[in-house]
Amino acid sequence: MILTVTLNAALDITYRVPALTPHATHRVAGVEERPGGKGLNVARVLAALGHDTVVTGFAGGRTGDALREMLAPLPLRDALVPVAGTTRRTLAVVDGTSGDTTQLNEPGPAVTAAEWSAFLGAYEGLLADAAAVALCGSLPPGVHVGAYADLVRRARAADVPVLLDTSGEPLLRGVAARPDLVKPNAEELARLTGSREPRRAVRDARRRGAHAVVGSLGPDGLLAATPDGLWQAAPPAPVAGNPTGAGDSAVAGLLSGLVEGLPWPERLARAVALSAATVLAPAAGEYDTAAYEELLGRVTVTERSATG
Amino acid sequence: MILTVTLNAALDITYRVPALTPHATHRVAGVEERPGGKGLNVARVLAALGHDTVVTGFAGGRTGDALREMLAPLPLRDALVPVAGTTRRTLAVVDGTSGDTTQLNEPGPAVTAAEWSAFLGAYEGLLADAAAVALCGSLPPGVHVGAYADLVRRARAADVPVLLDTSGEPLLRGVAARPDLVKPNAEELARLTGSREPRRAVRDARRRGAHAVVGSLGPDGLLAATPDGLWQAAPPAPVAGNPTGAGDSAVAGLLSGLVEGLPWPERLARAVALSAATVLAPAAGEYDTAAYEELLGRVTVTERSATG
Repeated sequence: MILTVTLNAALDITYRVPALTPHATHRVAGVEERPGGKGLNVARVLAALGHDTVVTGFAGGRTGDALREMLAPLPLRDALVPVAGTTRRTLAVVDGTSGDTTQLNEPGPAVTAAEWSAFLGAYEGLLADAAAVALCGSLPPGVHVGAYADLVRRARAADVPVLLDTSGEPLLRGVAARPDLVKPNAEELARLTGSREPRRAVRDARRRGAHAVVGSLGPDGLLAATPDGLWQAAPPAPVAGNPTGAGDSAVAGLLSGLVEGLPWPERLARAVALSAATVLAPAAGEYDTAAYEELLGRVTVTERSATG
Repeated sequence: MILTVTLNAALDITYRVPALTPHATHRVAGVEERPGGKGLNVARVLAALGHDTVVTGFAGGRTGDALREMLAPLPLRDALVPVAGTTRRTLAVVDGTSGDTTQLNEPGPAVTAAEWSAFLGAYEGLLADAAAVALCGSLPPGVHVGAYADLVRRARAADVPVLLDTSGEPLLRGVAARPDLVKPNAEELARLTGSREPRRAVRDARRRGAHAVVGSLGPDGLLAATPDGLWQAAPPAPVAGNPTGAGDSAVAGLLSGLVEGLPWPERLARAVALSAATVLAPAAGEYDTAAYEELLGRVTVTERSATG
C-alpha cells in the first residue's frame, strides 16, 4: 500500500457569493464541504488510480469527526490519529462574478507531546506495510519544525521511499534528512536554494540532500533533477480552470509511478497529465478521468543537459 | 417562564485577521464560536436577569449539535426541535486593525412541512406555560412567509403576550396579526410604514396592527408608541463599542419588564440600559452587569406629545 501523511488535515469549506466586499454583509448562496489537506488530496487521486492507499495524520473535534465521516465512503483506509484539539477549517470564498477566491485558514489543533508519540507509533506500524510514503502540507501548532526530517529518517530506516511536499523551514530541514523526492514550486525552490533559475535551483536542491527534485513550474509543467538525468515535462497546451489540488495530483502521479517502477519520463508524463486534468475538472481538487487519459499520450518530456 | 423562538438559529463563528484582503490567503489568528440567532441572544439575557427561560426553534446537523452542546451549560431550557437539515453558520471576519466586520451568512436548513408541523405542536405545548413569547429573527428556507403571523395568532389565542422582532415581509405580515409588541429599527420602520420620521413611523406601525411599537434609534435609544403614551428613552451619553446583540438585549429588557408588570418608562429604561451595557461589553452579544446597574438610574425617559 501507499501511505500519505497529513499532519494538519482540514475540513475544506467553499462559500459562493456574488462578490466579496469587505465590511459588508453577504448571503452565502452555496456551501460545499470536503476533506482537505494535501495528503488527503494525494490519497484520493492514488485511490482513483487503483492503488491501495492509507491516510494518517491527526483528526480531532467536530470538524475531525465530519472529515472522517466524509472519508468513510472513499476507497482508502483511514488511519488518522485522534487528537483532543479541533481539526482546522479552511474557508474559500469564491466570487461568482470574477471566480476569484479569498482564502481564510484556521491554525489547526495544538498537538501535545503525547499525541505526537502516539502518531509516531502509528506511523512506524504503517511503514512496515508501505511501498512508499508521502509527507504533505503544513505542520499544526505544537509539532516541532524538524518533524518532517524525523519522519523522513524513519521512512529511510524502514527502507520505504519517501516523498516530501511542504514549504519553509520544515522543507529546509526535511531536505537535509535526504528524502527520495521533493516537489517544490518555483517559490519554494527559490526560498530553498536562493535561485530563481529553475534548472540551477532543482540541481542545487538535490545537492542539499534530496535524491530527486521535481520542481513545479505551474502551467509550464514539471522540471525534474534525478539520479538518471534532468527532464522537463509539459502539457500539450496551457489548460484553463481551477488549479486547486493540481500539485497534489502531480504528487500522486509521481508516487504511483515510483511504486510501479516506471522510468522517470513516464512518471513525469503521468504527473503532468493528472495535474492538467485536475485544473480542467469542474470540482476543485478532483481530476477529469477522460481528460487524463487523453492528455497522457500528449505530454512532451524532453531530456535537458545537466550542465545547460 | 418566558419563551423565545429562533426559527433560523445559527452557530456564530468569529475569525480575527490582521486585515481582510479580497483574493488573498489569510491565516486566521483567532477563532471563536457561540450559539447565535436573535432569539437565543434574547434568552441568554433573560436568563442572566433571573427569568425562567425556554428556547425553541430548529436545530439540525453537526452545527445544530455544536449549538445545543454550547447551550447545555447555560441557565435556560433547550426545547429546540430537530430537523434533518443543517443549522446555518454565520461567519464574522473581524479586521484587527480597523475593528470592522465582514459578515458571511449561510442560508439555514430547508425545513419540511412535517418538521414545521412538529414545531407547531411543540410551540402550542410550550405556550401553555409561557408568561410571554418572543419571535425573533429571519426565517429558514422552506418556512412560509406568513409563519410569524401564524405564531402571533396562536400566542394571542393562548392569551400569551407576544413580541415580534423580524424584518421585511415576515414583519409586515406579522404586524397585521396584531402582536403585543414589535421592535423595528429605523430601517425596518421605514420599510414598514414608508416614513423616515420616527414619531410618525412608530404611530403608523401601531395603526397597522401592533399594540405597541418600540423603534430603536441606535445610539439615540428607543422611541415607544404604546396604548399608555409616547416615550423616548435615551442613554446618559453615547456609548462606544460593539453593537452586536444590543437590539436583542433591548428585547430582553422589554419582555422581562412586561412579565414583571413594570410601567412603560421602567421597561424602556431597562431596555436602553441593557442595550448600552451590551455595546460596552468586550465580548460580542454579552452585557456588562456593572455597567447595566450603573446606567439603569441614568437613562432619561421623556414623555412625548402623541400629536407632536
